[in-house]
Parts: sequence; C-alpha cells; structure tokens
Amino acid sequence: MSSQPEPAPGALFLSEIREQPLALERLLAYEDAYRAAGEALRRRAPTVVRMVGHGSSDNAASYGVYAFGLLPGWTAMRDSISLSVYYGARIDLSGSCVLALSQSGRTPDVVEYVERARAHGALTIAVTNDVSSVLAESAEIVLPLAAGDELAVAATKTYTTQLAALALLAAHAAGEGAAYADGIRATADLLARVLPQLEGRVAEAARALTFVDRLFAIGRGPEFATAREFALKLLETCRIGAEPFTATDFSHGPVAAVDALFPVWAFVSDDVGLPIVLEAVARARAAGATVIASGTRASSLHGAAYRLPVPEPPLALLSPLLSIAPGQLAARALALARGLDPDRPDGLSKVTLAP
Amino acid sequence: MSSQPEPAPGALFLSEIREQPLALERLLAYEDAYRAAGEALRRRAPTVVRMVGHGSSDNAASYGVYAFGLLPGWTAMRDSISLSVYYGARIDLSGSCVLALSQSGRTPDVVEYVERARAHGALTIAVTNDVSSVLAESAEIVLPLAAGDELAVAATKTYTTQLAALALLAAHAAGEGAAYADGIRATADLLARVLPQLEGRVAEAARALTFVDRLFAIGRGPEFATAREFALKLLETCRIGAEPFTATDFSHGPVAAVDALFPVWAFVSDDVGLPIVLEAVARARAAGATVIASGTRASSLHGAAYRLPVPEPPLALLSPLLSIAPGQLAARALALARGLDPDRPDGLSKVTLAP
Repeated sequence: MSSQPEPAPGALFLSEIREQPLALERLLAYEDAYRAAGEALRRRAPTVVRMVGHGSSDNAASYGVYAFGLLPGWTAMRDSISLSVYYGARIDLSGSCVLALSQSGRTPDVVEYVERARAHGALTIAVTNDVSSVLAESAEIVLPLAAGDELAVAATKTYTTQLAALALLAAHAAGEGAAYADGIRATADLLARVLPQLEGRVAEAARALTFVDRLFAIGRGPEFATAREFALKLLETCRIGAEPFTATDFSHGPVAAVDALFPVWAFVSDDVGLPIVLEAVARARAAGATVIASGTRASSLHGAAYRLPVPEPPLALLSPLLSIAPGQLAARALALARGLDPDRPDGLSKVTLAP
Repeated sequence: MSSQPEPAPGALFLSEIREQPLALERLLAYEDAYRAAGEALRRRAPTVVRMVGHGSSDNAASYGVYAFGLLPGWTAMRDSISLSVYYGARIDLSGSCVLALSQSGRTPDVVEYVERARAHGALTIAVTNDVSSVLAESAEIVLPLAAGDELAVAATKTYTTQLAALALLAAHAAGEGAAYADGIRATADLLARVLPQLEGRVAEAARALTFVDRLFAIGRGPEFATAREFALKLLETCRIGAEPFTATDFSHGPVAAVDALFPVWAFVSDDVGLPIVLEAVARARAAGATVIASGTRASSLHGAAYRLPVPEPPLALLSPLLSIAPGQLAARALALARGLDPDRPDGLSKVTLAP
C-alpha cells in the first residue's frame, strides 16, 4: 500500500493554525538577517516604504502601515501593483524602499513590480517562504519567512509570520529590534498556550453562524489587518460575504445595512482605537446585530453574544499576532459545519498565477 | 400653509443624480483656481500626495491614485487618518502635499489631520463644497467642489465632482490642464445625454436584484473607485452586503464564495485592465453567478445577463465620471423596490461627526 490516505477535511488548515507558534520561533532564528535589513533601511532613510502583495500578503501590509508608521515613523503604503505594471505609470522610486510579500515568491506581477522598482532605483526586499524563488532572485535583500511549507490553500501561518516579519523589520529600522524579537518570542508562547482553549471555545460562535451569508468584520489601527484577513478567510473557506471595515468607516455608512440577519465580528484590542470600536459595536447592537467579539479586550465588551478573548502580548503592537487566531479557528469550524473543505476551496489555487 | 410638502422617497437622490452634469460645469467655472493649485503643486514637486477623506471621499481618492500616478507621475496615496490623528505617529511631512476631501468641510478628524500636516510642513489643499468651512480655513489652498447643496444622505454629485477635481488638479500639475478641462466638459455633455436613457434601462437589472442580500462589485485601475463607490451606495441605500474588489484580487480568493445566489456587477471600461476584468467575469460565470455589466465596454461582455453601457469619454481616464451613473440609478431603483428611502438611510447623517 504505497498511496497516502487523504487528510480529513480541514486537517491541513488546522495543523497549520496549530503550527503558528513554531513558525514564529523559526522566523526569529533569522533575526540577524532582519537586523541587517533594518540597518540597510535606516541608512537609506526611505521617503516611502512600498509594500506589494495579494490576498493575505496585502492584508499583512495593512499591518505594516502601522508598524512602520509607529516604530521608525515612516510612511508605508500598500502600493498599487497595477498602476506601474499594467498602466505603465512612470513614478520616481529613487527614494523608495519596496517590500514584496509573497509566500511562494512566484506571483508574476509582484516579481515584475520588483524588477521595475529595482531598475528605477528603489531598495528592494523580498519577504518570502522560498528563498530560492524568482522573487528572491529579483530583490536585493531576501528575508526568510520560515513558515515552512503551507499546504492548505487558505493562508494562516504565512500571514502571522508576515506580521512578525514586518514588526521585526520596522523595529530594527527604529533601533528597537531586540525588544521586538523578545516580544514576538513571548507572543508565540502565549499563542501556543491559548490555541488549545480557543479550539474548543470557537465552536459555539461558529455554530451560531452556520446559516449566515454575510457579515461585517471591524477593527481599527493595527487590528484593521486582522479584520481584513478574517473576512478573506470567511470568503474563501466558508463562502460568506464577509466585508472588513475600520470602525470609523463602518459607523459612517455601512452600519445602515445592519439588521438582525447581519452579524458583526469585532476585533477589540487595548489601544487608543478602542473607544471608537466600542461605539461602532454599540451602533451595530442598536440595529439588532448579533456581535461576536475577539481580541485582547473581548471579555469586557458589553452586548456581545460571544466573546473570544486572547491574552495581552508584552507589546501592544503585537496584538494582531494573537487576535487573528479565533478568527482562523472559527473559519475552520464554520466551513466544516457548512459541509465545505477549508483545505481546498472551490476554484482557488495556492499561487496567484493569473495577472 | 407654510410647511413644505415632504419629497417622495428617493426624489432628492434622483434629482442630485440628474444634476451631475450641471455640477461638473459649475466646477469648471473654477478652472483658474485649479490651474493655480496645480502650478503650486508643480513648484513643490511633492514626494507623496496624501489624500484623506471618509466614505465616498475616500472612494474618490482611489481614483486620485491613478490620476496623479498617470498624469504627473506622482505617488498619491489614501493616507491613514487614524495613524497620525489617533495613534500619534510622528511622520516627516515636509515633502508631502495633502489633499483633504470633504463635502461639508466639517469632518473633525479630517480637519485635525490637515492642521497637524500643515504644522509639520506639508502643503495643504482642501477640496470642499463649503469654501467657508473650518476645513477650508485650516488649509493653505481651497478648491471649490461647487457641487451645490447635497440634500440626500448618500453622496452622488459630490463624488463625481471630486473625481473631476482630482483629474483637473492632476492634469494641471502635469501641464495638461486645458485638455482635461475640455474633456470634463465634453464628458458632462455625454452624461447629460445618457442619464435619461439609463433611468429607464436600469429598471430590469434592479428588479432582478430585489431579493439579493450580497453582491460583488469588480473594477480595475481607475474603475476600482467606481466599484467601491457603487458598493457603498448599495450598502447605505439598499442594505445589500456589497463588497468591492479589484479584478485581480477577486480572482485570487473571493471568487471561491461565488454561486448562483451571489451576483457580480462588473465595471468594464476600455483600458489595459480590460482583459483581467473579462477573465474575472468568466470565472464568476463559471461559478454560476449572474453578471451585470456597466462601463464603456459593457455591450461587448459575453455572458452578462444585463448590460448598461455608457459612452466613451474623449480621454480614457475620465470614464469613471460616466460609469458610476448606472450604479447610482440602480441603487435608487433597488432601494425603492425594497421599500427603503434612499434619501434617508436608517442610522446615517450627512456629516461624519463621530471620530
């Protein structure tokens, strides 16, 4: 009998969710490479850090806006790939640094973006799981993600290691690398401890969402990345029309769409954005929405039907490494409850090969 | 009898949709102010153009990324208001220009962003309907939107005049202002001619969507702004969970959620992004989705159940001024079919006063 048995539906996804603390430890083994890249960035003093990637990588880039904005105080943006690669805009990149985020290192338009940016004078850095990929070859500096092979189509450990990579690089650029390396290590320990509890605790919330076909995910500041990543997991693995908003934008318009059939999942962490998230949740409750709360301050959220708190990390900026976990586990439980295999969503493949 | 009669549901929204060609003409009366601002920008040669605004204003900023990227070849970004206003990031703004987009000129965190940016050395420009507003007072340069009073809560003529303002300013910064002023004038004429036809033609598509509760809106390049603005109209006025994606991002993940109950509205215009939009539509069709096509190339879209073409403008970059119109009219028809008043969505007010 030489053929391998098929894994049970969702088995790959679950094992990669569980592997995240280990993946973060593996990334930290490359701290020297991150320190050297941070120092190269500091010498360059870029006017703009341009982050490019698709899907989960682009969601991680939303976190990078805050990591670079709050640590070295630099402008980091999710740059438009299509503007230069397809529409041919000729933009001066000589003062820029490019961070290309790609699990596989094979996404064609990300590779093309990096080749063009390097030819136009940008300092190019590839952050990838495959350090011998074409993306790694095309960039000046390569930073290993070290997440290990990711077999489930929907990314999990790639996303959390990308967050850690962005935090560590931004911290080294700000001269705070050692504190952040320690902080990521401690956060990985906290994640390892909370994951087994969360696996059980998400079941009730996931069951309540079995027949939902739309949902809003709200977060703020660094946790907007979490809201985006969770919404993408629900779209890909559960076929739920999940849409992420910052708490401010949610209250400005989309709240008008909320009713008892439109649940709201709020990522509630302990930072200056908290009052605005609480206000958005109160408005959603007033419109009759069921609210699910996760994040470091989920326990204190009045009016939430389900609360999935995670522990406080040693540095507030690292909260998103923990707060995505209940969302990942809920997406898995929900996909299985809906008879879907979260390891292999219909119509998706692992690498964005289409332009 | 001194009390005014209540307007019929959707009457304000419709009259403001119809007023858009006139609003564009009014904006062009301020071409001198746009030329002077474009020249001031050119002298400053900003490293980054930072656009800030909420809701429809932020959607217009998505268009600004392309207007500035393709005309003067500058990096324009939708900047994070919260990063500096709430999280206190200390970012060097001395080489930046700020474009603050606000219909009312009273949005508190936009005003605060501008005050901080001006104090930190940025060239600040307010684009607003109220040139005596607090926002106008806080910026160095004021550009009138000249849309006239907007009474419906959901923005229409504010959005289209913001697109025109961004195109005109970017064109003047690039030394192409005269051609774009002529182009906007001709586009306003085309819009005036096509609106009456569209009012009738949207009815069939809107009827088909009466019981839909989720929808994807896809566009690409400059038309991604159109997809975002249309999705926001559906959320606010029809309570539909509408989510915008670029055609590339749609094919990378969310397409997995599509089925026969999940319609896709595609904005299909004639530019280099067209093949990727066609590919995304083909994938949506293969998953069983009903497709509605609008835009300058809607007529040629095989497999669309409903086609709402608009005429070609004289300059391709001006297509979004036309292609949003079928979406606005469909949102109105659909809200009425669902028994909702698009003039006054539940729980919304005209000005984003909450932070």
